[in-house]
Amino acid sequence: MSELRYNKLVDTWTVIAVERARRPHDYPVHVYEEHGDISTCPFEYGNEDKTPPEIFAIRDPNTKPNTPGWKVRVIPNKYPAFRIEETDQSDFYCIYDKKGGFGAHEVVVETPDHNRHIENFTVDEIFDILTAYKERIRSLYMDLRIKYVQVFKNHGKDAGKSLVHSHSQIIALSQIPKIPDTIVNQSRKHFQKTSRCLLCDEIKFEMEEGDRIVYENADFLAYCPYASLFPFQVRIVPKFHSKDFYTINEQQQRNLAEILQITVRKLHKSLVNPPFNMVIYTAPPTRDFPEKPDYFIGIDRFFHWFIDILPRIVIQAGFELGTGYLINPTPPEDAAKFLREVIL
Amino acid sequence: MSELRYNKLVDTWTVIAVERARRPHDYPVHVYEEHGDISTCPFEYGNEDKTPPEIFAIRDPNTKPNTPGWKVRVIPNKYPAFRIEETDQSDFYCIYDKKGGFGAHEVVVETPDHNRHIENFTVDEIFDILTAYKERIRSLYMDLRIKYVQVFKNHGKDAGKSLVHSHSQIIALSQIPKIPDTIVNQSRKHFQKTSRCLLCDEIKFEMEEGDRIVYENADFLAYCPYASLFPFQVRIVPKFHSKDFYTINEQQQRNLAEILQITVRKLHKSLVNPPFNMVIYTAPPTRDFPEKPDYFIGIDRFFHWFIDILPRIVIQAGFELGTGYLINPTPPEDAAKFLREVIL
Repeated sequence: MSELRYNKLVDTWTVIAVERARRPHDYPVHVYEEHGDISTCPFEYGNEDKTPPEIFAIRDPNTKPNTPGWKVRVIPNKYPAFRIEETDQSDFYCIYDKKGGFGAHEVVVETPDHNRHIENFTVDEIFDILTAYKERIRSLYMDLRIKYVQVFKNHGKDAGKSLVHSHSQIIALSQIPKIPDTIVNQSRKHFQKTSRCLLCDEIKFEMEEGDRIVYENADFLAYCPYASLFPFQVRIVPKFHSKDFYTINEQQQRNLAEILQITVRKLHKSLVNPPFNMVIYTAPPTRDFPEKPDYFIGIDRFFHWFIDILPRIVIQAGFELGTGYLINPTPPEDAAKFLREVIL
Repeated sequence: MSELRYNKLVDTWTVIAVERARRPHDYPVHVYEEHGDISTCPFEYGNEDKTPPEIFAIRDPNTKPNTPGWKVRVIPNKYPAFRIEETDQSDFYCIYDKKGGFGAHEVVVETPDHNRHIENFTVDEIFDILTAYKERIRSLYMDLRIKYVQVFKNHGKDAGKSLVHSHSQIIALSQIPKIPDTIVNQSRKHFQKTSRCLLCDEIKFEMEEGDRIVYENADFLAYCPYASLFPFQVRIVPKFHSKDFYTINEQQQRNLAEILQITVRKLHKSLVNPPFNMVIYTAPPTRDFPEKPDYFIGIDRFFHWFIDILPRIVIQAGFELGTGYLINPTPPEDAAKFLREVIL
C-alpha cells in the first residue's frame, strides 16, 4: 500500500511506496545489468506469463493476448507505486496531510527484441509506441478519479532504468502533480495577460531566431529551450496549437515519430549513448474541482502539449537540491549547434 | 560569465555557467577519483598556491595566510558558477527574462588530511567547520546585493562531489532561490493562519510521537521528516526557535557539531558510506524588496532554520523529473528506527 504525503515546507508531495519497502542493506539499488539475462527477462517472447496479463498490445491479429506475436505490449508494473485498488481519499495524520495511493502504474514494452534500443528504432516502431501511449492515456482518462497521466521513459542506468529491455512507463494519479500544475498555472497567467499561448509565443520566437533549433519537420519543432534545465535538453513541440498529445492524427503521429527518432539519434551520436529521461506533458483532463472552480477555464487555449528529452550527464548536487536552481554548463545555443551539425 | 535565465513554464531559474562551458565530448564528467592524487591535490598543506588566496581560515596563530598550519580554509571556487565581478541586473533577451551572474562561490576545505572524511571527524573538527560557515554567511550578508547564501556539502561521487579531499561549498546569490523562497512563503502562510511557526509545530509533534526521531541532544533534534523526499533523509533542527543559523552560540554550536557527527556516523554505518548532500536552510537577510514590500514582515517569528541530510541512494528518474513528486521506498518511520538502532 502506497500513500502520498504532503511536504508542507516545500509544497510538494512524496510518494511513500511501501510495496517497494527497502531496508538499509537493499541500497544502493543495483538491479540493472548492461545486457541483462534474456532467459529470465520478463519482456521476451515466450515469457509473457512472467508479467501480469497485458492491458493493451499491438500484435499480429492471428495471435492471442499474452502470447508471442506482439510489437508493443502494455502491462501493469509488477511493483506499482500506485494501484487502482487503493483509495484516492484525502486524509490527515495528526498535523500532516496525506492521500491514498490510488492510481495506475503500467509498463510499455517497446519491442520484443531484447537488444534493440530506441536509437535503433524505425519510424514505424516509434509510431507504434506512440499509439500505445495515446490509447492508454485516452483509456485512463475515462476513469474520473484520474486527474493526470504521466508518460515517461528512462534510458540508461543513470537515468533510473532498472530493466535492460527497452520500455517506458505510464503513471496515472489522483491529483495533478507539482510540475504539470505549475505549467498549467504559468500558462494560464501568460494567457490572462496576453490572450496568447505561452508555448505558441516561444515556438514563434525560436523559429524566427533559429539559434536554438535542433531539427524540424512539417508538424514539429525540436529545440534546446532558452533556460534549459539540463545540458542538451531538447523540447519537441507541435507547431500547431493543441492541448492534448493523444489527439494527434496519423500524419502528425508519423511526423512526431520521425522527429523523435532524429533527435534521439543525434543525442546518441553526439553524446555517445547518454542516459536520458523522456517526459510527455499533456493537459490534465477537465474535472470537477470544487476547490479550484476556475482551474480549467480557457485550458484549450492556453495549454500546449510538449515532450522534453532530458540527458542525465551532470549530477544534481547539494546546490541544486538546496535551491531548486539547476546549473547548466552548456548554453542551449551551443548544445543546439552541436546537435544540428550531427550528421546521421 | 554566467547568467541566470528564467524558465517561465516551470517558474524557476537556470544558471548558465559558461565558465564551465562543455562540449559534447566533455560529458559525462569524470573528474572524481576514489582517492585522488595527493601530489596534485590543491587542498594539501604546501599546495596553498594552487588555489586562489584564502578568504578565511582557522589556523595556528603563528602561521601566515596561504601557508600550512590551517585546520579549515575557505577559498574562492576556481570554476565559479557566480562571481562578485558580474552584474546583478535584471534584464531581458527578447521574450525571455534573465539576470547577471553576480554572487560568490566559495570552497570550505574541511581538513588538511586528504584521507579524512566527515564520518571520522571529531566534534571539534565539525565545530570549526561550522565556525567557517557562520563567518562566511555573516560576512557575505554584509553585501546588500546578496539576497541568499546557500551552504552545502556533496559527499561521494553520486552526490556530485568532484574532488576527493573533504570540502563543502558556499554560494551567494542575488535573489532568493526557488526552494528557500517556497519555504519562506509556506512558513508565512502557516503563521498567518495560526500565529505559530511551522517547524516549531513539527518539532513539538515529532517529539511527542517519537517514531521518526533518530537522535536528540539538549539543543537539537534529528528526525526523518513525515514526507521525506529521499529515503533516510534526516532533518536536524534547533529545538529553540531561531531564524538564523549563524547566530548560534558556542554551546549550541557544540551540540550541533555533536548531533551532526552522530547522524552522519549512523548513516555511514547503516547504509555503508552512502553518498549524500547536506544543505543548510537559514533565513534570507532582510532587504528592501520594492517588488514584494511585505516579504520580511514577521520573518523572525515564522522562519526556523534547519539542516537537511539527503542520502543519494535512489535515482530520480522520468517520473520524478516530470511530476516533481519523489518516490520514497522507505517509510521515514522505518528509516528512523533503523538509524536509532545503529550502535556506534
